[in-house]
Order: sequence, then structure tokens, then C-alpha cells
Amino acid sequence: MLIRAGYDMRFETDRPVPMLANLSIHSSRNKDLRTAQRIMTTPDVPIYDYVDSFGNVCTRLTIPTGGITISTGFVIEDPFTPDLVEPDAPQVPVEDLPDEVMIYLLGSRYCETDRLSDVAWAAFGGVAPGWARVQAIVSYVHERIRFDYQMARPTKTAWDAHQERTGVCRDFAHLAVALCRCMNVPARYCTGYMGDMDLPALVGDMDFSAWFEAYLGGRWYTFDARHNYPRRGRILMARGRDATDAALTTTFGPTVLSRFQVYTDEDRLGFAG
Amino acid sequence: MLIRAGYDMRFETDRPVPMLANLSIHSSRNKDLRTAQRIMTTPDVPIYDYVDSFGNVCTRLTIPTGGITISTGFVIEDPFTPDLVEPDAPQVPVEDLPDEVMIYLLGSRYCETDRLSDVAWAAFGGVAPGWARVQAIVSYVHERIRFDYQMARPTKTAWDAHQERTGVCRDFAHLAVALCRCMNVPARYCTGYMGDMDLPALVGDMDFSAWFEAYLGGRWYTFDARHNYPRRGRILMARGRDATDAALTTTFGPTVLSRFQVYTDEDRLGFAG
Amino acid sequence: MLIRAGYDMRFETDRPVPMLANLSIHSSRNKDLRTAQRIMTTPDVPIYDYVDSFGNVCTRLTIPTGGITISTGFVIEDPFTPDLVEPDAPQVPVEDLPDEVMIYLLGSRYCETDRLSDVAWAAFGGVAPGWARVQAIVSYVHERIRFDYQMARPTKTAWDAHQERTGVCRDFAHLAVALCRCMNVPARYCTGYMGDMDLPALVGDMDFSAWFEAYLGGRWYTFDARHNYPRRGRILMARGRDATDAALTTTFGPTVLSRFQVYTDEDRLGFAG
Amino acid sequence: MLIRAGYDMRFETDRPVPMLANLSIHSSRNKDLRTAQRIMTTPDVPIYDYVDSFGNVCTRLTIPTGGITISTGFVIEDPFTPDLVEPDAPQVPVEDLPDEVMIYLLGSRYCETDRLSDVAWAAFGGVAPGWARVQAIVSYVHERIRFDYQMARPTKTAWDAHQERTGVCRDFAHLAVALCRCMNVPARYCTGYMGDMDLPALVGDMDFSAWFEAYLGGRWYTFDARHNYPRRGRILMARGRDATDAALTTTFGPTVLSRFQVYTDEDRLGFAG
Repeated sequence: MLIRAGYDMRFETDRPVPMLANLSIHSSRNKDLRTAQRIMTTPDVPIYDYVDSFGNVCTRLTIPTGGITISTGFVIEDPFTPDLVEPDAPQVPVEDLPDEVMIYLLGSRYCETDRLSDVAWAAFGGVAPGWARVQAIVSYVHERIRFDYQMARPTKTAWDAHQERTGVCRDFAHLAVALCRCMNVPARYCTGYMGDMDLPALVGDMDFSAWFEAYLGGRWYTFDARHNYPRRGRILMARGRDATDAALTTTFGPTVLSRFQVYTDEDRLGFAG
Repeated sequence: MLIRAGYDMRFETDRPVPMLANLSIHSSRNKDLRTAQRIMTTPDVPIYDYVDSFGNVCTRLTIPTGGITISTGFVIEDPFTPDLVEPDAPQVPVEDLPDEVMIYLLGSRYCETDRLSDVAWAAFGGVAPGWARVQAIVSYVHERIRFDYQMARPTKTAWDAHQERTGVCRDFAHLAVALCRCMNVPARYCTGYMGDMDLPALVGDMDFSAWFEAYLGGRWYTFDARHNYPRRGRILMARGRDATDAALTTTFGPTVLSRFQVYTDEDRLGFAG
Repeated sequence: MLIRAGYDMRFETDRPVPMLANLSIHSSRNKDLRTAQRIMTTPDVPIYDYVDSFGNVCTRLTIPTGGITISTGFVIEDPFTPDLVEPDAPQVPVEDLPDEVMIYLLGSRYCETDRLSDVAWAAFGGVAPGWARVQAIVSYVHERIRFDYQMARPTKTAWDAHQERTGVCRDFAHLAVALCRCMNVPARYCTGYMGDMDLPALVGDMDFSAWFEAYLGGRWYTFDARHNYPRRGRILMARGRDATDAALTTTFGPTVLSRFQVYTDEDRLGFAG
Repeated sequence: MLIRAGYDMRFETDRPVPMLANLSIHSSRNKDLRTAQRIMTTPDVPIYDYVDSFGNVCTRLTIPTGGITISTGFVIEDPFTPDLVEPDAPQVPVEDLPDEVMIYLLGSRYCETDRLSDVAWAAFGGVAPGWARVQAIVSYVHERIRFDYQMARPTKTAWDAHQERTGVCRDFAHLAVALCRCMNVPARYCTGYMGDMDLPALVGDMDFSAWFEAYLGGRWYTFDARHNYPRRGRILMARGRDATDAALTTTFGPTVLSRFQVYTDEDRLGFAG
């Protein structure tokens, strides 16, 4: 399926503010692009990309005094198949994990593995290792946390979400990631486009979404503790140890986000249109 | 000066436990070695190294049932000059920071920049940017935290140390790192050998030490909030966003550290001896 | 100085032809951009970048049947100072060279160090190591090769250029690079914009240029065996072991370059204009 | 199967000579080690490793005046299955190749794709793309080159081997690699241990061996133009664009190899013995 996606956002500021942003699709999806994907700004400012150690395309720019509008639109090909379910995927013993995966066993800003370890072993020590255990974690998080936009805050960690039992998709992901790591399953945080094209009815305003990946049986699988069932049409933008690494925008100074629109729709026009 | 350094440690365990370790000197010091540096284990088990994205030489092995002894000894050349002091080193504006340095502005497991930002700007917003501001942070941390081995715990963060006002060298480093990042100065956590050769009198049992580096004027400078004066003879082993990345050993299962000895001394024998 | 630079080129083809291109400035110059640098194509095709192990921004696209026009234009800040001359820069002993520099001592497609070693030691063994030796190599190449566009061919190597005594800027660079490596001086090939702004009179049609860098005294210095004097206003696009790694375009199928224009001029309009 | 492998070599020299060596197994095989693999030298000199961009474990040391003995021995687990044969493995269109694979389409010191392109298309343009085409190349090289140790020389390239029709395993590999790249199949040079354990009778003195890998159907497959049939028990040490990157030892000064022994045998003692 061809998906047309993009965003349009505006930041207000009264002074120049440097920004670090993950506003492109992840490099692993570059080959699926069917149009160029260019980030446009108004006013037109210098802007450039680099790729970080997670494969994220990081954009650097400085918001000028008076603010900036940033937008992108593109067409991408997507299999539009549901997230893979492989109940037989085994847990990989720690000693057999690839070197580059080890970092996803460690704690991080929003995933306090050291604090959650006892919780994790008490709840999941009795579940068979591998897919079943990760699914048990996903279901546990899905049940434990009540989705509530009002209860979001930037400092909220997995531990906080676990204790407060409220959160948004990022908190669902953080708690599940942390619990997986406690059980020696490498897990990483993901963010990206996630439309409502696979849903029976429209939901409200679109937003970017957060989910996570767990390493089982020699590869990464997608899980989503917020929805807890296989979704279709995810377009990965960034991943990392947690939301710190995959933040859509990090600003080094005071700004106000005054406009924010994201869209992901089936492309019905033909991408040349 | 030639320094002879090494360690000897023993872990007890009743089952095989995978370990990830930073038990070699950092790759940036390899050229200073005057003998080979080989990690020996008893019993002799398979063991290999890889280099992570921080330049740390990471060792992987599995502790066998019954435990393991791990030791290393080597001779290294060191200028034995005090940590550089350059009061004129300017702060680099965020937009001019190299791409690979940006990660050291972000929060991490033990450095909650989001929670400490208000503290940092209130305390250091009025200090001139650059070296003076970093030194003000170092002095603040040095004064605020009382060193106390009894008050160490693995989950202790920069925020915790700031509120509890006690800690060990790792906590001094974490708090200083977090405060620097809040002020847009890239900072990274360091660990390694730090002998007492530059001290007038012997201290007690040696341990590995923790310090940090701040990025000013286009390079990294060493700072030490625990001691708050220029020391000599540091031998870097690992660095990273915080102690998570630079832990000397991370074990994935229950172990007991039953012996632990570190030494760093001037080599008086000649390294061929 | 602000420099306005860019290119406009057209490839004809009768079938889809994949292309790998170095058509952006090198990542080390990104911070000097004063406008965005976007590669535009007609027709508009999917296109994306990655960064290779040399720091080159590599662009991937497929030329559609019927051909493609590719163009870029940008404004960049440049110190416009002459290439640095440091006659005291010492040769770094091989054992002290950083690990990542070692690859630039080895042979490569167009730099046959194994075949040129005897020539090199006979000619330069008697010259003092360091800057003087590299300069002797540059002068030797400058004298030995007669510039002649008619004598260019894609398979021409340093050895060929040495024997045939004719070539273009790329051959000057290859021969100098090979001879430096023979003498244990790391050297790498460079390509990029090089205008005539530092010349007293206009030269004819612009082209991209080739030069090289040699590693002396702990850093890389720019040398230019074609011109053999310090030029100003180079804008690096790509570098590597030789022209293989730094080719502006590599096409995997038959194409004809039917238009090719490069420009580099002082920006007199103001880049907002 | 457990394989016991190692080497013992001696270099004579009358002055200190820096060396760069690929004398460890490739990092991709580290997990198969069943003993530690330590490089020992007599005399004992400083020595350290780094990992290059090909995943090769590169060792740096300086041979002291009077020479050095270098040796290693280890036990490794190997499936001892024949090289995989998958006649249906398809050729990957260039535009679908992963970014990091593109470098293996380009020319290199000993693989002059530009000179061999016409030969390649004339000979293999009519063969079905994918596995069949690579196998046709392997058979062509196997037939075309007569193995002859006397005809080895360090400057010999794929083109030379093609014209002279003689060579050693390295020349077989270079020619096959170059021809694959001409046909847009990524190919890389490999070197390592290759015992005679899978042969009916002993061959003479062991040596390290060279083979290559071609990228088909989304992964790398092992091919061996010297033997032209699936062998068992290869232990990869280094790979790269050609023998330049995967040389077992590169010395920066005059040395004589006065002893050289390699062994690879089934471990019959048990590796604890």
C-alpha cells in the first residue's frame, strides 16, 4: 500500500534556539520512499542531517527569533501487514546475544531496570521465557496503565507510570521496555507515524505514536503495550534506549509549540499527482 | 612516568552467569601501554572483547558455576601531569557543537537533566559561561555532597544525591554531569584507575574512581567533583552517558564479589622485570 | 567570505539506472552552510542519503528512463584563507599513528603503493621526513605530470600517470597520495568545489577539483600537486582512499552525461536575497 | 565439531618495525570460541587490538630489533557443515542493496572492475542472474587459473591473474570478486584458517587460505574459486575489499619471515586438556 504521510508544526520563540530533531523516517525505511522526503522550513534556514548510532536521521537547525514552521510530506510503500506474531520465538540466552544488542539490556533515563527488577521477576519469573514472557509483560502493562493525556509529563519514568498507573503511549512503551530488560530480553523504544487506517472508525486528531521492539529468536519484533494487538502501517522515525534518544524535537532554550499536525493516509491520488 | 596497575577480583556464583565488563583501559590509552594487557581468568574460560560506541573495550564472558577470579596487570606510560586547567576555555554554543557530542547534552539513567534544570539555572545562570561555570558546578557539588561509603546504592541518581546530600565518587560525578548538561555544556562520565601517588600520604584500600569530562572550547577537559582539584595519574577505563555505560562489571544473574583489589603504583622495577 | 556554489547536470539513459553519488558537501562542512542544501531532480524521484565510513554524504537514486537533471545550490561560509603551510610539521612514526588513520597507508585501486615503493624510496629517502618530504613529493608530481584533459581515462592509476607523465587533477592527486603512503605518511584523496575566486583572471569552464590530504604532526593538511601552491576556497565534497571512494557519481548501467555545470562564486547578493 | 587451531610465526629484523596484523579470528566468530584466544609474543612486547570498519580485529605491535615470535592457539566450535549451496538465491537489484553493501561493488587495489567489465559482460551477460551467474564466474576462474605457488607475487591483480592464467588462492579470489562486482553482485575477499579435515588424505604444509563471499538474496554466501566445491571448517579471520584490507601482516619496514606454521585439527583432547 502507498501511504502519504507528513507533518506541519510551528514553534514560537523570542530568541534563537538550537534544535535537535528526529523528523525524518528512520534510515531503515529509506528504501520504501516513493517520493523524496524533504524537510521544509519557513523561514528558510540552514539545516542539515546526521545519522546517530541508532540509525536515526537527526536534523540540526536553529529556530530564529520569531519562530519557525517545519513541514514534510512524502509517499512511502508499506506492506500494511499486521505486526508479526511468532509465539514460538525463543528467548536468546544473554551469552548468545550479539554485542550490539547488549546496550538494550541496560537501564536508561526513563527505564529504571534497577528499580523494577523485583517487580519484574515476581510477576514474570513464572512465565515461560521467550515470546510468552514478552506478551505477558505487554498485557500486564496494558492492563496496569490507564491511558490519559492529562497525566503526561516529560519527567515521567517507567517506575512512575507503574506506581501512578496512568500515562500515554510513551509511558506504556517505557514500562514494557524496562520490564523486558529486567527479564534479560533486549528491548528498545520506537516512535513514528501510526495512522488510523487499520481502524474501523476515525479517531480524533493524529499524533505520532510510541511502541517498542523486543529481541527474540535472533531478530527484533514489534510490540505495542498501548494497543496490545497487532497494528498495521507503522512508519518508524526513531528508536533508541528510550524517549531521550528518540525525541521528535529537543530544543535548547524556551519555545512554544503553537501548531502541530500529523497525517498518515492511504495515497489515493497516485504519488505523481 | 611508568605506572604499574592492575586488579584481582573474585566472583562467587552457584550457576553460570553472563557478564559484560569494562575491565581494560580505554582504547584511547592503548598507545601508552608498555607491556601487553591481558585479562586472565581462573578457571580459564572463553572470553572476548568488543569496542562499544563510546570507545570502551567491553569484555564478555560467562562466570562458571563455582565462581571466577579475574585479574590483569600492566605497565603504562603516563605524563603524570595535573588535570589541565584553562580558565579561558569558552562554552561552545549548542549550534556549533559537533554532531557526535550532542548525545552528552541529553538526560540518562542517573543524570535527570529534566528534573535538575531549574536547580541548575537558578544556581549557575548568573555565572559566566565556559570554564567558570563548569568550575562553579564542580565546587557546588563538592560542597553539597558529603562523601560517605555507607550511603552508596546502585539506584542512586544525580537528583537523589542532590536531595540527600551524601554519596560516593560516582554520585559526585553524576550530579556534576547532570548540572553541566542542564547548562548546555556536554558532559560525560568517566571511570578508571586513580592511585594515591600524587598524595602526600597513603590512603586506605584502593578502588577504581569516577570523574567526568566537560566539553569546552572544542575539546574535552577532565573535572573531578569529588576532589575538586587537579589530580595526576588517572588511567581511563570507560566512559559514557553515566555509570550505566561505564560499569566495571554488569552481571546478568546473582553473584557475590568476594575479593576485590586494585593497585596503581609507580613502576620502580622497570617493566621488563 | 560567503560562497555561493552549486551544480546542474543531466544524465541521459534509455533504461532505469541506479546511481550512487557524492553530490553534497562533506559532513565536516555542514556547520558552515548558510542556506539549506537540497538536491533537486527533474523528474522528481525518490532519493535519500547515507553517510559512509569516510564521512561522505552518499546519495542513492535511480535515473528513470529518459534521463534526469540533478541540481543543487547553496551558500556556505568559508574562511577563504590559503591552505595552511607548516614546514615544521613532523612525520608521525607509524607506531604512533591513530588506529583510524592506518587505512590511509595501504594501497588502493588507483594508488599502487606496492609498485611505487622503489620509486618513492629512491626519490625521497634522502629528504627529511615530515613536511619537507611531502612537499618534495608534491613538487615532484607537479613537475613530472603534464596536465592534459585529453589524456584522462577512468582506469588511469598513479603508476600509469607516473609512467605516461600526463594526467588531470585526479592523477596528480593519486600519484602524490601513493608516494606519500610509500613513505609511511598517511594520505587520502579529496574532491570538491574549487573556484577561481583566488585567481587573478577567470579560467574557462569550472569543474570539480581533486586534491589530497597528508597526515603530519597529528592532523591532516591539504596539499595540491596540480597547483603546487596554497589555494583558497576549497569546499570538500568527498574523500577516501582514492577516486573510487570519492567519485561524484557512480552509475550501474549505461548513461550519457549531456550537461554539466559547476559554479562557485563569492555571494554578493546576500544569501537571503 | 571442536577445532583446535593456531599459528606460530617468526619475523627477523635488524631494526624496530611497526606491524599491523589480522591475526585473530574475525569478530563474527568470537562467540564460537571455547577457550580464550590470546596472541603471545617472544619477547613480550606491548600489543593491542582495534576493530576496523570490516569487523576485523587488527593487532598493532612493533617488532623489536632481533625479531619476534608470534603465536596463538585456541579451540573453536564449528558446525563443520559444507558451504551453503542455494541455487535459487536471486541477484538483488542494485537499487535494493543495503547502503553498507555498496562499497563491495566498487573497484579496489587488486580488483580492477573498470578493466574487467568487458570481459565480465561478454562471458556472463548471457547467464541467468543470481546464484547461477556467480557459480559461472567461480567455474570460469577455477578453469582459467592454474594454481602455482611459484607464480605468486604481492602486486598481482585480478587483471594480471586473468591474463597470466596462473596464481594462488588469493588470485582466484581476487578475480572472482572483480568479476562479480562487474556484474553488479557485491563481493568481498576473505581469509582465514581452512584445514584439510574435510579431505580424504592429508595435504602438505598448512597455510592460511583465501576465499570470497557474494551477496545474493539478502545475505552473504561463501564461494571458493580455488576449490570450486563446498568445503567445511573455514574459520574466518579477516575480510575486506581485497587482500589489502585482509592481509595477515603488513609491516612498515624490512622483515624476513623465518618461520611459519599454521594448524587446524579436530580437537580430540577436549579443550580443557
